[in-house]
Amino acid sequence: MTGPASIALQPPYFAVIFASLRTGGDDGYGAMAERMMALAARRPGFLGADSARGADGMGVTVSYWRDLDFIAAWKADADHRLAQEYGRDRWYRRYSLRIARVERASAWPDDPSSPRAEGKGP
Amino acid sequence: MTGPASIALQPPYFAVIFASLRTGGDDGYGAMAERMMALAARRPGFLGADSARGADGMGVTVSYWRDLDFIAAWKADADHRLAQEYGRDRWYRRYSLRIARVERASAWPDDPSSPRAEGKGP
Repeated sequence: MTGPASIALQPPYFAVIFASLRTGGDDGYGAMAERMMALAARRPGFLGADSARGADGMGVTVSYWRDLDFIAAWKADADHRLAQEYGRDRWYRRYSLRIARVERASAWPDDPSSPRAEGKGP
Repeated sequence: MTGPASIALQPPYFAVIFASLRTGGDDGYGAMAERMMALAARRPGFLGADSARGADGMGVTVSYWRDLDFIAAWKADADHRLAQEYGRDRWYRRYSLRIARVERASAWPDDPSSPRAEGKGP
């Protein structure tokens, strides 16, 4: 992870906000999480992701997508569905999942590959 | 942090997605982050937050708000503005900030205090 995701697309686009509390131990979780991120990154409509997990077991992953259809397709992906099932069985104590429409985006330092934020663009 | 935020409000509501890469060392960061979260939690319109920071310095904090006006007021809060300035000077290598409209929310296990997700509600 080299830093916050840099997305060269002007909003609106969509975010999937996944917040979770892990069970203890790895139990295959790390490998699965890496694989899911790699699979997501190859899917059409995927724009980027921000992810962090703390030593207390709390994790937040936000993935960004061009449109809701791409999110629905990724949700239905067979490998991803299997990971979701395993997750409920083994990896997560609790999680929440939200789908949101990104209206404004900004970055610091200013990212030249990103459009200007907060409606100040051309 | 006891787990993902449980929000007893049916979408739509709003999310502020803050992803950041820390500089090394604490340098007052932990105390500031705790104070900012406590201040935010007392503000009108604040619904909850999900936050995680990994050992690699990447952090993702998503705070949830009833409406955009409350987000604008929190952004302009004097203490918060000072923390933003300090953040750019001392604590963050990079960050991104996005404002998004939450359209759907679900949780596992089902949270009885939360409305049913994905449009399946009453």
